[in-house]
Amino acid sequence: MQAKRILVVGGVAAGPSAASKAARVDPAAEVILFEKGGAISYGICELPYYISGEVMGEDLVVHTPESLHREKRVRVRLGSCVEEVVPHRRIVRVRDAETGSLAEEPYDRLILATGAQPKRLGVRGEEADNVFFLRSLSDGQRMRGFLERERPRGALIVGGGYIGMEMADALRSRGMGVTLLHRYDLPLPGFERGAREKARETLEAHGVEFVPEAEASHFDLRAPERVARVIASQGSYAAEVVLLSLGVSPNAELAESCGIRLGRHGGILVDQRQETSRDNIFAAGDCCEVKNLVTNRWIYAPLATIASRAGRTAGENAAGGRARFRGALRAVALRLFDMEFMRAGLCSAEAKDAGFRVVTEKVTTGSRVAAMPGGSDITVELIAEESTRRLLGANVYGGEGAVLRGNTLAVAIQHQMRIDDLQDWDLAYSPPFAPLWDPILIAANAARRRFG
Amino acid sequence: MQAKRILVVGGVAAGPSAASKAARVDPAAEVILFEKGGAISYGICELPYYISGEVMGEDLVVHTPESLHREKRVRVRLGSCVEEVVPHRRIVRVRDAETGSLAEEPYDRLILATGAQPKRLGVRGEEADNVFFLRSLSDGQRMRGFLERERPRGALIVGGGYIGMEMADALRSRGMGVTLLHRYDLPLPGFERGAREKARETLEAHGVEFVPEAEASHFDLRAPERVARVIASQGSYAAEVVLLSLGVSPNAELAESCGIRLGRHGGILVDQRQETSRDNIFAAGDCCEVKNLVTNRWIYAPLATIASRAGRTAGENAAGGRARFRGALRAVALRLFDMEFMRAGLCSAEAKDAGFRVVTEKVTTGSRVAAMPGGSDITVELIAEESTRRLLGANVYGGEGAVLRGNTLAVAIQHQMRIDDLQDWDLAYSPPFAPLWDPILIAANAARRRFG
Repeated sequence: MQAKRILVVGGVAAGPSAASKAARVDPAAEVILFEKGGAISYGICELPYYISGEVMGEDLVVHTPESLHREKRVRVRLGSCVEEVVPHRRIVRVRDAETGSLAEEPYDRLILATGAQPKRLGVRGEEADNVFFLRSLSDGQRMRGFLERERPRGALIVGGGYIGMEMADALRSRGMGVTLLHRYDLPLPGFERGAREKARETLEAHGVEFVPEAEASHFDLRAPERVARVIASQGSYAAEVVLLSLGVSPNAELAESCGIRLGRHGGILVDQRQETSRDNIFAAGDCCEVKNLVTNRWIYAPLATIASRAGRTAGENAAGGRARFRGALRAVALRLFDMEFMRAGLCSAEAKDAGFRVVTEKVTTGSRVAAMPGGSDITVELIAEESTRRLLGANVYGGEGAVLRGNTLAVAIQHQMRIDDLQDWDLAYSPPFAPLWDPILIAANAARRRFG
Repeated sequence: MQAKRILVVGGVAAGPSAASKAARVDPAAEVILFEKGGAISYGICELPYYISGEVMGEDLVVHTPESLHREKRVRVRLGSCVEEVVPHRRIVRVRDAETGSLAEEPYDRLILATGAQPKRLGVRGEEADNVFFLRSLSDGQRMRGFLERERPRGALIVGGGYIGMEMADALRSRGMGVTLLHRYDLPLPGFERGAREKARETLEAHGVEFVPEAEASHFDLRAPERVARVIASQGSYAAEVVLLSLGVSPNAELAESCGIRLGRHGGILVDQRQETSRDNIFAAGDCCEVKNLVTNRWIYAPLATIASRAGRTAGENAAGGRARFRGALRAVALRLFDMEFMRAGLCSAEAKDAGFRVVTEKVTTGSRVAAMPGGSDITVELIAEESTRRLLGANVYGGEGAVLRGNTLAVAIQHQMRIDDLQDWDLAYSPPFAPLWDPILIAANAARRRFG
C-alpha cells in the first residue's frame, strides 16, 4: 500500500497541531503543510504581550518550518497559497508567492486550517501606515516596529472586546495615552453586566479614555498613508496610531468554493471527527464553527484552545484514527491591568436566546481570609437554569485567582452539574490562597438560597 | 411549646459555626456555647502567619462573645468547662474556671465541638517556657510574645507535617535559623514522593536544616523551665526555642465517657446528620472522624474546612433541620516559601491500603506559556484506579496556581471522574495565566497514554 498523502492548509495554530498529530499517528504518511505567509506556528494570543514588550518576538514562534520537519516530520511550504480544492480529483491548486506559478498537489486527506481574518470598517485609510490589525505575526511586528520607530504618544483603539482590552493595557504599559471607542455602553460583550462594568471601571482607573456607544465611521487622512483622525458616530478623535479590534470572521471561502457546508456564522461545519461535508476533507480552527457544549448549537468561537484541540482531532482522524472533539464552552480569560476576567459557558443573554429561563447570582468576597494581607476582591457570578438548577455559565473576576477559579466552574458547566453539587465541594483552604469558604462556595450557597 | 435549648461545647471553629446555624434555623431556640478557654471563634490555620508577623493578633478573631451574641444570637460562656454529659437526664455539668463551682445545665440538643489536642512526646521539659505547641490562640500569643521578648536566633521544630512546614517558613521569615527534625526521610506525609522531595528541597533552598529519620526522645534542661537541647534518635540539637508539631488527636473523652461511639482513630463517629450514637447529641469538627468520599472509610482529618461544614450541618439538624454532610477528600493546601503544595483525595499508599490498584502519572510543565515571563514550574501528579481509570487523588505543586488547579482536580475526584473526562475539559487560556494546554490537561493526556 502506498503511503498516505495528507495536506494541511494553514500554518498558524490548528494547522501545525493537525499536521503534527497526523504524522505521529501514521508514521508512514507524507504530511505537507502549506502556509501562504512567511511564518508558522506562533501564538496570536501572545501578540498583546509582544506589543507591551513583555514577550520577545522570537519567543512567539513555537515551531519553525525546520523544527516542525525535524521534530514532527511535517514538511512545510511557506509562501504557498492554496487557491482551489478539487474534491472529485482529490487535488489542490497551490500558488507560489515568489514565482506566481500554480501547481497541482494530490491528496488522500486534506485538512483546512485557514483561520480567520480581522473584520474591517471597509473605509478609505484602513490600509494606512498607522492603522493596525492584530491577527498575525507580521501584524504584530509591523505594529511594534511602528511604535518603536515613531514613538507616538497616544493610540486610538476601535473595539472593546478582549483583544481591545488587552491592547489598551499593553499600550498604557508603553506609557501611551489610550482612547477606546466601543459600540456599546460597556466593553467585553459576552460577559455579564457586572463584569463589563468592572472592566470599564478598570480601564478608566488606569487612564484609558473609554468612549461608549461610538461607531467609527471613517478616517481623516493627513497624507495618503497616514490617518489623522477617526470620525465616529458622536465625535472625532485625533489618532497617531489606530488599532482596529472589531473581531474576526472565518476564512471559509476556499471551503465554500468546493461545496463544503458552512454554518450561519460563516464558518465551516464539521462533525465530531472534524470532517467536513466533503469526503476526505477535514477542517479545524478559526475557520470552523464549533458546537456549544451547553446548548449543542453551533457557535463561532475563534479561540486558541479550541483550535489546538480541534486540530489534533482532525490530524488524528485524517491519519486514520478515531478521535472525537465534542465542542466547547467558549471559556475566555484575560488580564486587564491588575484584574483578571474569566467567563465560561453561556452568558445570560445567550441562555435566554437558547430558551433557558435563568437565575443569576453575583457575590463579591475576599480572595483570601480577611486577616491575610495581599488579598483582593473577587466576584463570582453564576448563571443557572431555573427549572433544573443546572449551572449554564459563570463569570469570575477580581485581583487574584479569578481565572483558575473560573476553570473549576467551567468543569462544573461541562459536566452539567447543579448549583447544589457545587456547595458540597471539598476545596482546599489555606490563608494565603482563599477564604475558609472559597468564593465559589459562597456564590453557590447564595445561589441556592436564591432558588429557595 | 417551650423554646428549645441547644448547648454547644467548644468555641473555636465547629462550635461557633454550629451555634450560629442553629440560632438562625430556629429563631426561638436558646443557644448557649460553652468554651473552657478565654477566646472563641479564631483561626488556627492563621497562627503561622501570626507568628511570622503577616497577620495581626486582633485579625485572628472572627467573633468575640459579644459579636456572636449580637449578630448570631448565641450566648457564650467563657471559662466554662463541660466535664460531664448525662444523656438520660439530658444535662451537662459545667465547671466554672473562676469559681470552681459545678453547675447543671439542661439541654434539648447538645453539640460537641471539643476539638483536638496536640500530640505530645510525654517527656520531662515539655511544659518548659521555651517549648511550644500551636493549637490555640493562647499558644500563638505565648509563642509570639516569647519570640519578641527573647529574640532567639534559632528554633528547632519537631515534626514535618504541614504545620511544621508553615512554621519553618514563618520562623525563617523572622530571620531565625531553623532546624526541623522529622521521623521519616521526607516531610509532608500524605503527599506523594515527588511532592515530598520537592518540599524537602524547598526547605533546604531556604536555609532550613532538615534532619530526616530523627525521632525526638527527650530534652536536656538548663533550668527547670528551660530546654537547652533536644535529644533525638541520631543526635542532639541545641534549642533556644522548640516547636512540637507532631499532629493532633481528637478530644473525645467527654463523648466517650457518656457512651458515644468512637472510631478507630479515636474520634467521634457521626451519621450524615452529624448525630452521634446517642440521641439528641450531635458532634462536629476536630473531635470527629469523617467519611472519606473516595473510599467511604472513616478517616481522621482535622481541617478547618471540614469543621466549618460539619459544624453548620450539626447546628442545622440540632435546630430541627435536615442537612447532610457526606464527607471529605482531605484536601490540603499550604504555602512553603515561594512554593504552593496541594493534595486532595487519596495518596497512592492510602489507595493501595483501600484495595485499589493504582496508576500514577507525574508531569512537570510551565505554569504559563513559555514566552510569557513570570511563570514557574508546576507539577501535577494524578493517582488513578487501574481498572476503571477513575481519578482517586492528586498532588499539585509549584510556584503559582498550584493550589487553585488542585481544587479543580478535587472536583473531579469528588465527582468520580475518569482520566478520560479530564482531557476533554475546555479550560480558559490566556498567556498570563496558563500554557495553551493547562498543566492539568497535559497530565491527564500523559496519564491516558500511560493507561494505553
